[in-house]
Amino acid sequence: MTRLYDALLSPSSVAIVGASDTPGKTTARPLEYLRRHGWKGELFPVNPARETVLGERAWPSLGALPVVPDHVFILTGPDLAVEAVRECADLGVTVATVMADDFLDDGGRGAARRAELLEIVRASGLRLLGPSSLGVTAPGDGLALTANAAFAEAEPGDGGVFVASQSGSAMGALLSRGMEMGVGFRGMVSTGNELDLTLGEICLASVDDPRIESYALFLENITGADDLRAFARAAAERGKPVLAYKLGRTDAGARLAVSHTGALAGDDAVADALLKDLGIARVRTFEALLEGQNLARGLPLRPAGAARPRVCVLSTTGGGGAMAVDCLAAAGADLPGPSPETIGRLAEAGIAAGHGALIDLTLAGTRYDVMKSALDVVLAAPEFDAVVAVPGSSARFHPELAVKPIVDCAANGKPLAAFVMPAAPEALRLLRSSGVAAFRTAEACADALFAVFGRRKPAAGDRPGPRPPSADSEILDEAESYEVLGGAGLSCAPHAVVTAGELPPGLPVPGPVAVKILSAEVPHKSDAGGVVLGVTDGDGLRAAADRIARSVTERLPAVKPERFLVQTMARGLGEALVGFRHDPDAGPVVVLAAGGVLAELYQDRSVRPAPVDPGTAREMIGEVIAFRALAGYRGAPVGDLDALARAVAAVSRLADADGAAILEAEVNPLLVLPEGQGVVAVDALVRREREV
Amino acid sequence: MTRLYDALLSPSSVAIVGASDTPGKTTARPLEYLRRHGWKGELFPVNPARETVLGERAWPSLGALPVVPDHVFILTGPDLAVEAVRECADLGVTVATVMADDFLDDGGRGAARRAELLEIVRASGLRLLGPSSLGVTAPGDGLALTANAAFAEAEPGDGGVFVASQSGSAMGALLSRGMEMGVGFRGMVSTGNELDLTLGEICLASVDDPRIESYALFLENITGADDLRAFARAAAERGKPVLAYKLGRTDAGARLAVSHTGALAGDDAVADALLKDLGIARVRTFEALLEGQNLARGLPLRPAGAARPRVCVLSTTGGGGAMAVDCLAAAGADLPGPSPETIGRLAEAGIAAGHGALIDLTLAGTRYDVMKSALDVVLAAPEFDAVVAVPGSSARFHPELAVKPIVDCAANGKPLAAFVMPAAPEALRLLRSSGVAAFRTAEACADALFAVFGRRKPAAGDRPGPRPPSADSEILDEAESYEVLGGAGLSCAPHAVVTAGELPPGLPVPGPVAVKILSAEVPHKSDAGGVVLGVTDGDGLRAAADRIARSVTERLPAVKPERFLVQTMARGLGEALVGFRHDPDAGPVVVLAAGGVLAELYQDRSVRPAPVDPGTAREMIGEVIAFRALAGYRGAPVGDLDALARAVAAVSRLADADGAAILEAEVNPLLVLPEGQGVVAVDALVRREREV
Repeated sequence: MTRLYDALLSPSSVAIVGASDTPGKTTARPLEYLRRHGWKGELFPVNPARETVLGERAWPSLGALPVVPDHVFILTGPDLAVEAVRECADLGVTVATVMADDFLDDGGRGAARRAELLEIVRASGLRLLGPSSLGVTAPGDGLALTANAAFAEAEPGDGGVFVASQSGSAMGALLSRGMEMGVGFRGMVSTGNELDLTLGEICLASVDDPRIESYALFLENITGADDLRAFARAAAERGKPVLAYKLGRTDAGARLAVSHTGALAGDDAVADALLKDLGIARVRTFEALLEGQNLARGLPLRPAGAARPRVCVLSTTGGGGAMAVDCLAAAGADLPGPSPETIGRLAEAGIAAGHGALIDLTLAGTRYDVMKSALDVVLAAPEFDAVVAVPGSSARFHPELAVKPIVDCAANGKPLAAFVMPAAPEALRLLRSSGVAAFRTAEACADALFAVFGRRKPAAGDRPGPRPPSADSEILDEAESYEVLGGAGLSCAPHAVVTAGELPPGLPVPGPVAVKILSAEVPHKSDAGGVVLGVTDGDGLRAAADRIARSVTERLPAVKPERFLVQTMARGLGEALVGFRHDPDAGPVVVLAAGGVLAELYQDRSVRPAPVDPGTAREMIGEVIAFRALAGYRGAPVGDLDALARAVAAVSRLADADGAAILEAEVNPLLVLPEGQGVVAVDALVRREREV
Repeated sequence: MTRLYDALLSPSSVAIVGASDTPGKTTARPLEYLRRHGWKGELFPVNPARETVLGERAWPSLGALPVVPDHVFILTGPDLAVEAVRECADLGVTVATVMADDFLDDGGRGAARRAELLEIVRASGLRLLGPSSLGVTAPGDGLALTANAAFAEAEPGDGGVFVASQSGSAMGALLSRGMEMGVGFRGMVSTGNELDLTLGEICLASVDDPRIESYALFLENITGADDLRAFARAAAERGKPVLAYKLGRTDAGARLAVSHTGALAGDDAVADALLKDLGIARVRTFEALLEGQNLARGLPLRPAGAARPRVCVLSTTGGGGAMAVDCLAAAGADLPGPSPETIGRLAEAGIAAGHGALIDLTLAGTRYDVMKSALDVVLAAPEFDAVVAVPGSSARFHPELAVKPIVDCAANGKPLAAFVMPAAPEALRLLRSSGVAAFRTAEACADALFAVFGRRKPAAGDRPGPRPPSADSEILDEAESYEVLGGAGLSCAPHAVVTAGELPPGLPVPGPVAVKILSAEVPHKSDAGGVVLGVTDGDGLRAAADRIARSVTERLPAVKPERFLVQTMARGLGEALVGFRHDPDAGPVVVLAAGGVLAELYQDRSVRPAPVDPGTAREMIGEVIAFRALAGYRGAPVGDLDALARAVAAVSRLADADGAAILEAEVNPLLVLPEGQGVVAVDALVRREREV
């Protein structure tokens, strides 16, 4: 790992293949930048057509170099790039970064090129960054191994933030915005298509670098979930927080994010669940990705089921304080207001505070002693998890004085953030350089706070990762599906399988029963007339079987209606849908939704990486709004939500099932019975890898 | 109006009562600022304890002044302020602004002081701004009649934005942020408690000022809805857009916003509906309030039911473009991608564009001709309502070159906004000063665009305003409620009133029927055992009446169960709740929600100022997610949504009902029958002013 990381971020020697001699051209930039920023390593421009490049000796090929460079940055078009990569592998180079794109599944040469690169990498010790990577920078060392125009300017000084970005252009914006904010970077990597090196592996390689304090990820997709998980665990163990901004929240956005195979991006809700499961704080505003770094440092991850953060807002400007309260509440924070004890302690300090969410010090708060006393009191108050200070115009006119009390409290231990109400860039910079999370907008402040507090300890132990798509699978019929689910611990309604022509004289299970066609080839039984309800005796069973047979034969002539499932009907207080599937990016996931049309319309569901324990399943139940109707709402009877949680956990364990792999399962509906009576499945579908 | 406005924003003479001689004190600031900013009018500091104040002649009283000042700014404590206001009224001053607070209903002298001020104002021609007002500023004229420390600095030059703020401290933040952004202000008014002059009246007075192009409102409450409506209409007629940021979106935030009587702020959803009805663009991010001003100018208001804005995103940075797409889609915009014709025209200009939502010009887009050509094509394309340009790092390094193509297209007619991806303050300022709406974040860009496009033409004609709380009201029983609602045009299930002891031999209306206790004193009939369902004949009716009588008497001994409502039972495809009430701030409102527990949990409802026409009612139906289940979802039968719209309109017209005023009405449930069969009310409650 260290050798890889050193070659990426701290190479002693670098070769630039395809370096241009024309100043201003994209392919001239890396050499220009490295010189401008004073990078001190050995630098070899490779250009067979030139003796010199930008005044320096040019080398005709990689093989002609006097050393084997640690890191080779390849700026040529795609075909020449493949050749250069091959040469790197032959020579024993550690890392090659390819800038060219055109390696995607576009029906053209892209896929073939990709296959060649993969072959070269697998057959050698070479590691590949990209393709379509805009390079690597380590600003404090002058390493600007990139053609991204944003890096023309030197970033002053070093910082503790490591950026890994799946968008090359966003990396430049992060640099300039970071500079403007006073946030410093240890390193920045443009991960490109992640054909070989994934974002997770790169970050994992970096995790012991003492110059890194926290991470900022700019994501388009979830790639390499296993690597990401390994990184997230390692970062959590070392107390290095990880914040992520991810595109594709909306369908329109998701269609833009193309994975390294050109495939569409996965379900954003799944990505969201995975990031949460990994203890990565997903922010929803771009600014919070950098502004929130200070907030996360030193704040431990919380256990599953932790309550919402309880926040105190302390202002010298009523309008700004109210904005902070509104944004924090909208983001989901709890704003309990000070306790009587805290009010008392504030009064002792000469500060009059009411019970409301906002403690407005007004003009008096511009005095150091008043703000300091107030901060000391609320930071020590047990009813608060975090404090947001909102300075007013004093932050603009007297920035050092205005920030001093906040900075002096920063080492207190409890998270302290500042939302600066006026335009006050100096105050923001002073706060940040002192380690205080300072925000230009109340929206980003609330976003960061809620995301950072939402981080959970990454689940321990092995977790199955994504699996490649299965070659061959089979859909089980309802009875077989119940068997699989029953094996996982799920309760199904009493049922029996009967055969046409051999129907029993009476009902084989307690009635009234539902009679359903039993065939994996009839997925939508009701639509095909394949279900009859309310059958109470043997005659009814016979009549139902006949009716179903005729109906199904008429609509689906290819299906021979020979077998039927006879199932005791049940009534529940409510319905749930519990599903399991293998997300191609995130791995196995479990989904819980309320049943019925309305829940579909409201998209009322919760998703988690599978498997989950009943505690996490309980958290999921809490996220599905419709289930509040079963939790004793308005005096209505209470449903057996514990049994529901156990059922969700059971379905989630299908990832670990013995035998042929379960690819997909859905129980819909799962009836929730009154408290103490459990839950019962009355329909189910399972898709399984076909056993060879 | 002009006299009032001139006295507020362009007074020839100003007196400052309570001006302090101590530099730096709050009460010294207005004089300091007026001098520092070079205000040219006649200025009279009034301070009975001093001969001079800050080196200028001090006057012992208002009566001693050589002229009657246009505008008097009173900086004293509340009791002296009341006296000073009285003196202003006696002297014939036009406007007095009171800075002191302590005029609220706090159980102390506050309410008494307020009553005195009101009395003085009503008995004279004096108009009062405040109390608790931080004053008035007109930066281009050097008028800084304020003690807000933010105004110590002079704002360079004039601008077309007029700010009216219910938060004095937020006004300062708007000034500094506006300065940083390059947004200029024509005037800023801190409206305070709005005891006399409301925000609406102040803005209405300003609306013919040729130096005002658009408005930015910072709201805590909706006060003076009638004045706000008059202003909104006048502003719309003059093509001057109004943007508003309002606090209190959340319960926690709402509790902070105290109205001028100290009462709690009203329902934010109602405020939202009112602002929309008035054609005011409510933004949800603070930055969009100013950054969005340019976007709204020149963009006409749209009719009710207008479709979502169709937006084109054009970038030179893929990451930034994707962020813009994501944020725009999340805000509710439609991102259709270019039509084949548009793709063809782009190709003619040498630009390769796909069908996706983002047109990424990449590096080529940094050239003037490429970006200009692309903008010309998409701005002319009929499939787009607006275009968002997303420049990359070129905006930071070559701001003038990067913004030029955008600026040159700004006069095109179709709304054109820019989201600048890197940190590029110069580019942002250049764009804004050229009239282009430029945004620092994709979030604010999407927020502003959606809010601005969501503006509807203010409803024409008179609309009833808020009414004072009624002294005495009565709740009608269910039958009386049906009469009132029937008079408004609502269909109710067939029903009859029967009296105990005089029950008819058979059912008075078609069965099966529900039998319900008929009494305005039993609001929760089911809980009291006051409802029996499924009665099919006269005997059943008798038994039901007995049962109900016993049950009700047992639970509510004070009620004499003498009368019953017999109602034909009905089944619908779905249920709705339609309500009408008088919001104390916004006036009469109509509410539509889906019936049932789930709709409550999801807060799935739509609200509008009443009355509404069926077209607006249709818009409301479209906003209630649950009703999609009745619109032909998944092959389910379609409900009579036209009848539902007519019913909503009918209930909304209760504001205009003849006779005693209807204060509140609720129909729940209103059953929605299949298409063509209408809707039918099966329970209702009406509260009416008691006729004297």
